[in-house]
Amino acid sequence: MNHPHPMFDEIEEVRAQQTMTRRAVSEGMEELLYTMHPVLDHGFVRVVDYMGNDAAIVQAARVSYGKGTKKMREDEGLIRYLLRHRHTTPFEMCEVKFHIKLPIFIARQWIRHRTANVNEYSGRYSVMDKDFYLPAREHLAAQSASNRQGRGDILEGLEADHALELLRSDSERAYAHYEELLNSREGGEIIHPDKQGLARELARMNLPVNYYTQWYWKIDLHNLMHFLALRVDSHAQYEIRVYAQTMLDIMKAWVPITHQALMDYRIGATELSAQALKVIARRLAGEEVTQETSGMSAREWEELQSVIG
Amino acid sequence: MNHPHPMFDEIEEVRAQQTMTRRAVSEGMEELLYTMHPVLDHGFVRVVDYMGNDAAIVQAARVSYGKGTKKMREDEGLIRYLLRHRHTTPFEMCEVKFHIKLPIFIARQWIRHRTANVNEYSGRYSVMDKDFYLPAREHLAAQSASNRQGRGDILEGLEADHALELLRSDSERAYAHYEELLNSREGGEIIHPDKQGLARELARMNLPVNYYTQWYWKIDLHNLMHFLALRVDSHAQYEIRVYAQTMLDIMKAWVPITHQALMDYRIGATELSAQALKVIARRLAGEEVTQETSGMSAREWEELQSVIG
Amino acid sequence: MNHPHPMFDEIEEVRAQQTMTRRAVSEGMEELLYTMHPVLDHGFVRVVDYMGNDAAIVQAARVSYGKGTKKMREDEGLIRYLLRHRHTTPFEMCEVKFHIKLPIFIARQWIRHRTANVNEYSGRYSVMDKDFYLPAREHLAAQSASNRQGRGDILEGLEADHALELLRSDSERAYAHYEELLNSREGGEIIHPDKQGLARELARMNLPVNYYTQWYWKIDLHNLMHFLALRVDSHAQYEIRVYAQTMLDIMKAWVPITHQALMDYRIGATELSAQALKVIARRLAGEEVTQETSGMSAREWEELQSVIG
Amino acid sequence: MNHPHPMFDEIEEVRAQQTMTRRAVSEGMEELLYTMHPVLDHGFVRVVDYMGNDAAIVQAARVSYGKGTKKMREDEGLIRYLLRHRHTTPFEMCEVKFHIKLPIFIARQWIRHRTANVNEYSGRYSVMDKDFYLPAREHLAAQSASNRQGRGDILEGLEADHALELLRSDSERAYAHYEELLNSREGGEIIHPDKQGLARELARMNLPVNYYTQWYWKIDLHNLMHFLALRVDSHAQYEIRVYAQTMLDIMKAWVPITHQALMDYRIGATELSAQALKVIARRLAGEEVTQETSGMSAREWEELQSVIG
Repeated sequence: MNHPHPMFDEIEEVRAQQTMTRRAVSEGMEELLYTMHPVLDHGFVRVVDYMGNDAAIVQAARVSYGKGTKKMREDEGLIRYLLRHRHTTPFEMCEVKFHIKLPIFIARQWIRHRTANVNEYSGRYSVMDKDFYLPAREHLAAQSASNRQGRGDILEGLEADHALELLRSDSERAYAHYEELLNSREGGEIIHPDKQGLARELARMNLPVNYYTQWYWKIDLHNLMHFLALRVDSHAQYEIRVYAQTMLDIMKAWVPITHQALMDYRIGATELSAQALKVIARRLAGEEVTQETSGMSAREWEELQSVIG
Repeated sequence: MNHPHPMFDEIEEVRAQQTMTRRAVSEGMEELLYTMHPVLDHGFVRVVDYMGNDAAIVQAARVSYGKGTKKMREDEGLIRYLLRHRHTTPFEMCEVKFHIKLPIFIARQWIRHRTANVNEYSGRYSVMDKDFYLPAREHLAAQSASNRQGRGDILEGLEADHALELLRSDSERAYAHYEELLNSREGGEIIHPDKQGLARELARMNLPVNYYTQWYWKIDLHNLMHFLALRVDSHAQYEIRVYAQTMLDIMKAWVPITHQALMDYRIGATELSAQALKVIARRLAGEEVTQETSGMSAREWEELQSVIG
Repeated sequence: MNHPHPMFDEIEEVRAQQTMTRRAVSEGMEELLYTMHPVLDHGFVRVVDYMGNDAAIVQAARVSYGKGTKKMREDEGLIRYLLRHRHTTPFEMCEVKFHIKLPIFIARQWIRHRTANVNEYSGRYSVMDKDFYLPAREHLAAQSASNRQGRGDILEGLEADHALELLRSDSERAYAHYEELLNSREGGEIIHPDKQGLARELARMNLPVNYYTQWYWKIDLHNLMHFLALRVDSHAQYEIRVYAQTMLDIMKAWVPITHQALMDYRIGATELSAQALKVIARRLAGEEVTQETSGMSAREWEELQSVIG
Repeated sequence: MNHPHPMFDEIEEVRAQQTMTRRAVSEGMEELLYTMHPVLDHGFVRVVDYMGNDAAIVQAARVSYGKGTKKMREDEGLIRYLLRHRHTTPFEMCEVKFHIKLPIFIARQWIRHRTANVNEYSGRYSVMDKDFYLPAREHLAAQSASNRQGRGDILEGLEADHALELLRSDSERAYAHYEELLNSREGGEIIHPDKQGLARELARMNLPVNYYTQWYWKIDLHNLMHFLALRVDSHAQYEIRVYAQTMLDIMKAWVPITHQALMDYRIGATELSAQALKVIARRLAGEEVTQETSGMSAREWEELQSVIG
């Protein structure tokens, strides 16, 4: 089950409460504030706080670009213009804070995005929860033969059974031994009264990287979009992609105009090299172009074909 | 007069409006949201948005440090502990967005703080306002004789009159010529119908750095405190210090517990070197210590005396 | 004349000296180290130090991607692959430090790139040099009629003469009054023995933003490329574009393979939106597409035509 | 044994080579360039490249502070002044690049320092090495009774034996099962010809966080000092402290004057709160002060006593 650590129970109470504010409000975001969005077998994403909305982006842009009319249609045009031309600073004027539960090996990829604020659950200070990630059978993939960094076919039958059994039993044993090292069961019960137990900061080293951790993750909208565009991409590992996809949906509720612009100009867009642009111009002019006559490498040629058919 | 650019008039309307929110609210900050705090002769600071409050810091800290009791007294103790021990990440969980009008030479110091988001009024895109800074007579200081980076006595009489007159007349003339270069008066009236006018991005180069600019400036609380501690310091230039002092007051309304901790552990605190600590220990043990026997340079010795008397 | 501040004279001596090092060396960069590249009427760029070369990028990439053969041809392929797929971290492993002299209004645009280290000449601490920027006649452009942020035709005849004369005389007067405020001529000679002189940190406010400043600017190669791609772009202001172009040439001497990849995959490349890609696919399939049937706005349609003809 | 991944063998060849350079050189750093400094049971630190030296800091500072005499004694005074007064930007003008092998749970603490560039070995792309950390017996500590985040007594006798045996056997089994999941032994030998093997990006999730990873880590000197001051502190976990101590020694060889200033003004220094300063002033004035009359909490009082005796 995807459940938060008990320490977050208090947040549920907060959700019921409403207060008056003079700040900019996003109705879509208010609706889903504090709501738990399950991801993977025990993970989740939920919004804890946010600042700004589509209008706040427009307002910030107009500091630089001057005041125009304020009809919705023009706001939309301005936001789309800003994103298309990579005028990124107005998007930095919105901020969002998530509470996320995710496997450690995914947290290790995630943290590489440096322009965010993070408060993570501490295994030095507290006992780690007994929650570990096991892939669903339909995601238990073999190594890709063609892509050193990707997945191939889904494992089947006994091989899949055996792989899951190895992962599960090792995870279970690791936690049992973690408790033994701590000399303490869940809830704090001492195991051997005559033993001291290893320090938490050492005992935790026995846990594999499929164990879950939790953090608060706060980021501005510009950097969030950069994160999402990279991580919903098909080259991203499945286990981080599902988090990114969930957050992309949340972004849609928060700043719908910006979300649509992101889909059109980043996530659905492609950067074409100088060579690729020449090939297209020649083909549009009626010329037959092959990889040999394109001046592109076989790999780039393939990448281009997959984009323009 | 300290007035915003007309483009910000719409903000005043916003101030009257209140909406329901599920987010964390700071009552002190709601009170002063959008209020203009005048600084210098034409500048101001006002809060446009914020995220979080003292409780949000505690909440973030408890992700790492575990849930304790939630009585106010303990929240205060935790916040003070975090600040004292430079556990900075929970303070990054709060965010604030200011609208600031400030002279260009101050903006140039300010922007050196890199961990903030900025949208500045663009002199390429729009015509600069005719607002320039003239020091009040009581701040018209001579160069310090002892400190290459500081001020000395206040100029008096005719020298002060003359200095102000030079600054005022050059500023006035620079703007008149700026309009002549643009071939356009305030409001957009063309001066010579047969002239084209220089591009805005070039004409602006005639304006001196005492002209005012405006920006949105968004920063997290940890980095704000770092900025404030450096800029309320007596070594900071007076013209940036008054902005920092205004923002420190705003911070007090926003996160009063954190503000008090900042005063006690940063702004009112002093870092003592290994040598200085030894001197104090020797003196507390009853030993007479002079600069010669202290192992400290004359300058450091003086700095220490000014701290402990 | 484009000359450094006298304080940098010592650097020339350094250029003559050579020492042995075990570090990675770029022959192209060694050749131009400390050499002054003039920009505008009084500005310059020069390289003061660097770290790494093309091979260092490959070396860093192989930490992640495993060791392959090390023939030049494959190094080139790897660098081009990394840049094409925005695997940016290996490019962060190279670093460069410039000494740059540039007008203040350009420094204000430049500093918006936050991921760099900067040490700037201080007008609080030292007297500003009497160097100001005047556009060459062929760059004295009118405001663009179609683009609020751009230049139009070059001013001609008397209007140009007059504009230059205004800029020159205001700049000259501003400096004369700056000295009068300081009560000190260049070289430190006191003007009126019975006057104190205004503090440097105040007197400088009389100087317009076409005055030159100087700084050390240090940045990693990934962020340098981001800066260059934005600032050699035709939408960038001419006065910053010439700096970027000079630095792009320096980059070519430093890391020639990476430079070529940057030209092909960034500077010569274009990002096409989801809509634009569909239009191209339809046209390649033989369909006639107009703006009306494209689903694109008039502006985006125009932008697309300018890219693919 | 502390050995690098075979992919780094080529670096050894590089060490033998020397080339001429015009760049600033640190003799101390040249001496230890590429040398492996063992840390823990299988980890190491080694310098791969560097930029700048003590003189480069002085040179950068003089951009702002003006040229003075260049005698060594004055350089030293300037560096000490800069560090004492937290004028940090000149220290950003030096840069260093390390190759580090470290346990994953330490890498997770380390990466929280965001102002650095990182290239890490990829478990998606390559097979993880069979190297895991086991604490030496003298570091096998019990949980501290007084400090939730620290260590207490060293475990003894059978409890220590058992803890080490659990850690070792779980680590060994995890790797054996990792190979079984991959269907591949070290060296790439296929285990079961009729099986596909799980994708590397999934199989790695079975490895515990005491397994070693490797990365290139590049940082400027200011941020390095911040990292070192936090991580050589007695509150830091032992396993990261030994890395920090090793790098502090390396820093001493690289920039000896800055290293001494760091020891005096940061690592050996203490920040005293407004309250603590008052207590000291009262005691120096001959007054007897107790915790009760100090206005400080019991905890802060204790902290103060431990500093000044």
